[in-house]
Amino acid sequence: MGKDKTISNTTVRRLTKYYRYIEELDSQDVQVVSSCTLGKMMNISPSLIRQDFNTIGEFGRQGHGYQLKTLKKEIGDFLGINKVHNMIVIGAGNLGQTLANYDGFSKVGFPIKALFDINPKLIGMKINGIEIIDLDNLKDFIKHNNINIGILCVRKHCVQQMTDRLVDSGIKGIWNFSATDIDVPDDVKVENVNFSNSLFTLSYLMNDKYHSN
Amino acid sequence: MGKDKTISNTTVRRLTKYYRYIEELDSQDVQVVSSCTLGKMMNISPSLIRQDFNTIGEFGRQGHGYQLKTLKKEIGDFLGINKVHNMIVIGAGNLGQTLANYDGFSKVGFPIKALFDINPKLIGMKINGIEIIDLDNLKDFIKHNNINIGILCVRKHCVQQMTDRLVDSGIKGIWNFSATDIDVPDDVKVENVNFSNSLFTLSYLMNDKYHSN
Repeated sequence: MGKDKTISNTTVRRLTKYYRYIEELDSQDVQVVSSCTLGKMMNISPSLIRQDFNTIGEFGRQGHGYQLKTLKKEIGDFLGINKVHNMIVIGAGNLGQTLANYDGFSKVGFPIKALFDINPKLIGMKINGIEIIDLDNLKDFIKHNNINIGILCVRKHCVQQMTDRLVDSGIKGIWNFSATDIDVPDDVKVENVNFSNSLFTLSYLMNDKYHSN
Repeated sequence: MGKDKTISNTTVRRLTKYYRYIEELDSQDVQVVSSCTLGKMMNISPSLIRQDFNTIGEFGRQGHGYQLKTLKKEIGDFLGINKVHNMIVIGAGNLGQTLANYDGFSKVGFPIKALFDINPKLIGMKINGIEIIDLDNLKDFIKHNNINIGILCVRKHCVQQMTDRLVDSGIKGIWNFSATDIDVPDDVKVENVNFSNSLFTLSYLMNDKYHSN
């Protein structure tokens, strides 16, 4: 199945959400699901769901619902989830350790293989069984452990420097939790998790109701 | 300035990002900024920036750039940032403590006033000077401390129950870090930070380059 470059970021984010619900239903041994059922669960219109599914392939017959396993595989393939992505965390502070403590990533095929830091007090410690390694060993570790995602949990002043080191070591995906944007070459992809932007969006939503309706 | 209900989520997120850059420039005592300068900094086209600014008000004269203080105030008013929002964290585990340890929220007018938990070992402890309080005291604390945002850092199985308690206590904004969606009345606003959705989006971006171009 080929991909259409015009698929919007909003659609992709909805697909990631469908995948989450489909995975949940799959774990409950559900076999078939209709767009109406999914719509009710997710508070999304069934027609939008059918439209999104049509964007990535043709599966399901009108009135018969979707085979859950097929749906899960197709969306998973589309999102590139159906293969293992090895990850490392740069910065073993509070946030880095919190992410390492979360088993959910490993369960969906995104294991964290190591944390990196420059603090000698942290190096050698294990968080949830994952070792904190000296940053000096970054390039070698990436090379020998088939790492393709770097998670940035470092302070603002060294974010770009760490980004450059990851890129230089061959990393193709950066999950950026630092509070600042980064520059990367075109073939490296970045997903930002910016807490301030998210909080300000909530503030806007709360503000909104005083101005309109 | 009134608000237009049709402003898209994407525009709002860009405005939160502008605000972040404008704040940074303001801290460097910059007085005036052009859409070209901002565009170069943020990798966004100057015309889109001007269009976004026009969406929320009329300020700046063609060719004269924008007064930074005015811009900051207008965008801040629009996003509802220019007033204090007191927050509490529900769930004092790794993530809850990480958020409490982060001073950035307080600096932009969103202080965390307390963490709540049911674990007797945690109750009474202070994280970054912020106390962990017994969940039994939730309603009273919200009432007496002018809290309007609840941050959900609890496990899946009790998320909806905690949401209902927050809503029942008069909370109007929920910042949801739990890995699941929640149901709230129309007058309560929710912003989700879903790590899996974000990670799957990164996976899609990385997958994309193998299929197109």
